[in-house]
Amino acid sequence: MPNVILLSPDKDEYQRLIESAHLPDLELITDPARADVALGAPKSIRNALPALSKLKWAQSIYAGVEPLVDPAQRRDYVLTNARGVFGELMSEYVFGYLLFLEKRMLERIQAQGAHQWQRTESGVLRGKTIGLFGVGSIGEHLAGTAKHFGMRVKGFTRASETSTQVDTYYHGDDILKFAEGLDYLVSVLPRTQGTNKLVDEALLNALPDRAIFVNVGRGNSVDEAALAKALTDGKIAAAVLDVFEQEPVPTDHPFWTTPNLYMTYHTSAISYPEDITKLFVENYHRYIEGKPLKHIVDFERGY
Amino acid sequence: MPNVILLSPDKDEYQRLIESAHLPDLELITDPARADVALGAPKSIRNALPALSKLKWAQSIYAGVEPLVDPAQRRDYVLTNARGVFGELMSEYVFGYLLFLEKRMLERIQAQGAHQWQRTESGVLRGKTIGLFGVGSIGEHLAGTAKHFGMRVKGFTRASETSTQVDTYYHGDDILKFAEGLDYLVSVLPRTQGTNKLVDEALLNALPDRAIFVNVGRGNSVDEAALAKALTDGKIAAAVLDVFEQEPVPTDHPFWTTPNLYMTYHTSAISYPEDITKLFVENYHRYIEGKPLKHIVDFERGY
Repeated sequence: MPNVILLSPDKDEYQRLIESAHLPDLELITDPARADVALGAPKSIRNALPALSKLKWAQSIYAGVEPLVDPAQRRDYVLTNARGVFGELMSEYVFGYLLFLEKRMLERIQAQGAHQWQRTESGVLRGKTIGLFGVGSIGEHLAGTAKHFGMRVKGFTRASETSTQVDTYYHGDDILKFAEGLDYLVSVLPRTQGTNKLVDEALLNALPDRAIFVNVGRGNSVDEAALAKALTDGKIAAAVLDVFEQEPVPTDHPFWTTPNLYMTYHTSAISYPEDITKLFVENYHRYIEGKPLKHIVDFERGY
Repeated sequence: MPNVILLSPDKDEYQRLIESAHLPDLELITDPARADVALGAPKSIRNALPALSKLKWAQSIYAGVEPLVDPAQRRDYVLTNARGVFGELMSEYVFGYLLFLEKRMLERIQAQGAHQWQRTESGVLRGKTIGLFGVGSIGEHLAGTAKHFGMRVKGFTRASETSTQVDTYYHGDDILKFAEGLDYLVSVLPRTQGTNKLVDEALLNALPDRAIFVNVGRGNSVDEAALAKALTDGKIAAAVLDVFEQEPVPTDHPFWTTPNLYMTYHTSAISYPEDITKLFVENYHRYIEGKPLKHIVDFERGY
């Protein structure tokens, strides 16, 4: 009889959802010492790790699991993360912001304030080229939306070429070739050693000056000083950032006032208990049947 | 040998595109008295009509052909309009603005101005219900994009039920039932006698107060005073309008300052010569082969 502990700020909602799923043999408990299974936020699970002496499986409610893949932490259990649920939300965010910029919405609002019938032309997504930094389940969903809008898709990955929605793949040393001619560069990279400051001065210089950079992955992949400079110097047209090296961003950080930089606050894809519970239910059935779980994290790789 | 006259502000670009299409027997001319075929803007064609004594076919570069279906004008030629080319652009506009509002982009920008890490939740398109007022080629494309974003689609049409992307159709007297429960109402209706002030007080009252209204059809379909009142009274959440009863909108019109109203300036879907030339080339081949043309306008119906 698996004893499951909930370690999330949305604990009550998870309890309601899991109880209504009537999972066989499952018992919800609150004593970490008795828990075989934990469902929760990576940070909360990490804080509870010393007490989770019987832990066999932890399901993260987020995609990013940095607190748990930290080499200082235990790795004697199976960690699964949330995948396949954030693609839709990320698509809404990414294409929403690209359209916000292409349709020049702020200019239209300003014209309205001035009672001005402003017939300047809008930009379009159709026919543009988007480059995806990372093509896992989120990147694949973004590629599908780009295709829906009639765009060309370039993908940069470590090695995998799984999505058929990507027109051309790039790897390793081809990073500057990947950047060439991009209208939009979107990073969905996880935080790992291998992703540190991939978006640096050389890459920003390789982008056309019309390019828009969007980061919905992790802040470590960006050389923030180089990005602020590229925007200030007009080397690229705009940036939309949901993630940062340090969060919350310090109040004296240059990004708050960098021109053509649009900040959001790590809100591009919220973790909805309904979505995560579906993942958990599927994995729970696999767990009690002794089958391999889905979305297992490779502690070494970091995602 | 068909003599073709170009009646568009983009005449030079159309000439270049048509010449490079190498259409058999086609001669581009500038004397209206010798023209069998006209390609151009409805207003320019109407102004030339008295001189176009040999006109057999006119291809409009726009979807809306009001100046030509005016009962005071000649109808002794075949009029075709531009269809199937604006759907993509309209989708970019409509879903761009819906995402702009759902993702609370203005609030994020204001927070940035105040150096404030603002973690309030965004809205989502996924799971929402969109109602399409009119499901022709543009409405069908919008329905497809709505489905891509995981939405439910209701369609209101005169009689046709052609798009399979629409979940439920409504007609005639079912208009208030159609409005019930909509998160978004999008009008793509053409200007006809039958579409006058369909969006009136009763319809606006039937919408949930969270509803967003978008008009990319024609201004005549909206009772503008009723809409301004509904927005001022908070009966609906927001409106995004690209078309108006009178264009340009008079500088003293209440819409310039109506709360939660976003104006654009009949720029949601630009007519691109590349797109229109493709339509023209296809119809030209049909014309010289004596086949029925595509996208023939019914002068009585008005579209």
